Amino acid sequence: MNIPTTHTPLFLRHASQLVTLKGSSNAPLTGAEMEQLHIIEDGSVWIEGGRIQHVGTDEELAALYKERMAEAEVIDASGSLVTPGLVDPHTHLVHAGSRENEFEKRLQGATYMEIMAAGGGIHSTTRATREASHDQLLKESRRRLDAFLLQGVTTVEAKSGYGLEWEHEKKQLEVAQELHRTHMIDIVSTFMGAHAVPADYKERPDEFVDLVMNEMIPEVARLGLAEFNDVFCERGVFTPEQSRRILEAGKKHGLAPKIHADEIEPYAGAELAAEVGAVSADHLLRASEEGIKAMANAGTVAVLLPGTAFFLMADSADARAMIDAGVPVALSTDCNPGSSPTVSLPLIMNLGCLKMGMTPAEALTATTINAAHAIRRGHEVGSLEKGKKADLVLYDVSDYRSLQYAYGVNHARTVIKAGHVIVRDGVRVG
Amino acid sequence: MNIPTTHTPLFLRHASQLVTLKGSSNAPLTGAEMEQLHIIEDGSVWIEGGRIQHVGTDEELAALYKERMAEAEVIDASGSLVTPGLVDPHTHLVHAGSRENEFEKRLQGATYMEIMAAGGGIHSTTRATREASHDQLLKESRRRLDAFLLQGVTTVEAKSGYGLEWEHEKKQLEVAQELHRTHMIDIVSTFMGAHAVPADYKERPDEFVDLVMNEMIPEVARLGLAEFNDVFCERGVFTPEQSRRILEAGKKHGLAPKIHADEIEPYAGAELAAEVGAVSADHLLRASEEGIKAMANAGTVAVLLPGTAFFLMADSADARAMIDAGVPVALSTDCNPGSSPTVSLPLIMNLGCLKMGMTPAEALTATTINAAHAIRRGHEVGSLEKGKKADLVLYDVSDYRSLQYAYGVNHARTVIKAGHVIVRDGVRVG
Ligand SMILES: [Zn+2]
Ligand SMILES: [Zn+2]
Repeated sequence: MNIPTTHTPLFLRHASQLVTLKGSSNAPLTGAEMEQLHIIEDGSVWIEGGRIQHVGTDEELAALYKERMAEAEVIDASGSLVTPGLVDPHTHLVHAGSRENEFEKRLQGATYMEIMAAGGGIHSTTRATREASHDQLLKESRRRLDAFLLQGVTTVEAKSGYGLEWEHEKKQLEVAQELHRTHMIDIVSTFMGAHAVPADYKERPDEFVDLVMNEMIPEVARLGLAEFNDVFCERGVFTPEQSRRILEAGKKHGLAPKIHADEIEPYAGAELAAEVGAVSADHLLRASEEGIKAMANAGTVAVLLPGTAFFLMADSADARAMIDAGVPVALSTDCNPGSSPTVSLPLIMNLGCLKMGMTPAEALTATTINAAHAIRRGHEVGSLEKGKKADLVLYDVSDYRSLQYAYGVNHARTVIKAGHVIVRDGVRVG
Repeated sequence: MNIPTTHTPLFLRHASQLVTLKGSSNAPLTGAEMEQLHIIEDGSVWIEGGRIQHVGTDEELAALYKERMAEAEVIDASGSLVTPGLVDPHTHLVHAGSRENEFEKRLQGATYMEIMAAGGGIHSTTRATREASHDQLLKESRRRLDAFLLQGVTTVEAKSGYGLEWEHEKKQLEVAQELHRTHMIDIVSTFMGAHAVPADYKERPDEFVDLVMNEMIPEVARLGLAEFNDVFCERGVFTPEQSRRILEAGKKHGLAPKIHADEIEPYAGAELAAEVGAVSADHLLRASEEGIKAMANAGTVAVLLPGTAFFLMADSADARAMIDAGVPVALSTDCNPGSSPTVSLPLIMNLGCLKMGMTPAEALTATTINAAHAIRRGHEVGSLEKGKKADLVLYDVSDYRSLQYAYGVNHARTVIKAGHVIVRDGVRVG
């Protein structure tokens, strides 16, 4: 993230509802805790040095900062809902090309195999991403990041995995790093060399696994290109055993494990996540009951992606059952050109409610503090508490439930990142 | 619609794809016609006096208007998709209050009966709408209309039906009329006194039907407050026989029939629509095969509302079967506080594809020219042809399929209404 320097404090005041989610920095929220938003009515926040200095009622803060009021820039949040900046913990942000032609073919009745045979599917994105220069990839990805920001998203995880060759995996991760440095949004990088078996390794997948483990992962670590290591564990892609080897190799090099698990069929991905101590297991449409229990015991965050199920016309993961079993649930767009071409985390919240039985409060917890914990940023963002990064969103609705109720519309009006007003009245200003 | 006067011609040029839908002004498109968007690549439009003067390739128009180029305001549409202004043919725009509390209760497991017992449901909106003054209703509705405009919607149908007493039905229709006069969006008004049986007529619904037929409809016609007459034909609300009487009474007074039909169960609503010569039959989730055939023969437009099914977690209408049977299909938000609190016609297109088997081209036809025919405005708007009102939308995507593919995001950047640039770069300027 690229922070402009400024010394003017920011005083956001009179929020109708200030959703603080206080007390959640140490661990993700589970069970009934996910309903506890800790809302302050007529809430105010004093921001200075990019950090939250105080959170409370307007009366409290107005008294506390009486002497310094004149030096602050005041943001009047009357009539508005204010939440922590939204966090998207699972995206394939850095890629080239789009696949609306496949979307149309699919709606006209083509099968995935027919689309693959016509040069579509994941390999078309791999091809486009390999062909794209660093600068082209940067430009396309920055545009998506700008769109995320307008929706109130201030932290985004980004995976590699469309290169599938070291040169291009490295390029993806370098683009993500450059975005982290030059864009206002914070990027958290994940290496995902094991996103698919490349066409030329189809007959010898274990050799590709070795390549990822022995060549790529050490380089990622040596160059400091990522913090997480992810694998697509699914029948026909990487087996649980291959996935375990890849995740353990990452751990040895200091990369924390994440896993794409149990999306298409039950494959013991949730169990593996718990076993290797993954920070999150993602998708989980077909996770077994035992897998869910194991995740609850291990404290693994379930990152659910209802947009993907929606876009692929599939059933959704059972968020309700996971929350009831004590698994901390987060939500994400899965932003990618094949199965979820969206940057709208608010619509994902709505799908969380309508398709997965979550309540509006749970959906908001799942896109703020629990999403932050899913990428190990729970101490830094995701709630409004003293000392945290001052990432906040102000909306054109006054009630948190309206975010999911009044669907299909972007309600974010003002976005503050690290104490800087970046979006004002829906328009980028910083 | 409130048109500012100006004499400067507008020259929109170099659209990547200019979706014209030419040749569709006389009748809605059916069957395979719904796929024919008549796209011009590198397309341009010359606009003057609020009307489209010429549509063609940039080369053609640049030659034709060579002498006059200097006097025109030029809009460079390079890299952009341009479509006719979107038309929403079914909304309950004019109402007071919102019902996010019910939404939350529903997600927490409450039944509709429990919500009704707690003072919720349609009666809560009726109460709020009756209590609201003309000015308050105007203010709330104008805000929704502003949001429609930002999504590229330039014509909106609006129904009464939350008053259910003459004084308040009249108030709703007067607000719609005032919006038509003072807002840039064109409003087409529908009287829907028969939206529900008011609580005090519960035991004597026929008396309410008589009241609507003999007192309200004549007044609506006398005062010129609406062009259409709509009824909620559903078991437990108005029977097909009551609906027929109400629609025939409207016809006698010059109000064209529309009908809310077969939403909850098959109730011969589609058949009735065809029989009385309704301009459209709307909802149709449970329409019978005979009803669909009758509509195809009569040329009745099916206005489908997939957002309502989505928000109520129900199955959707079978658009595919209707298109294949030759029924002209239109799409709409159904914008209302109980079952579809949205203004996003683009998301409705996406739902048309993902939930109802429509193709991207069909979905676009269904929100432009077919939607225009559903409110008898096919000669005026809905396609880009010489002589039509100059309502156009320019998007931040270059391919029409991206509108439905890149879901959950508002792609409209520039909105032109009657030849005036009203939204520029996503921001209201007129
Ligand atoms: Zn993924
Ligand atoms: Zn309706």
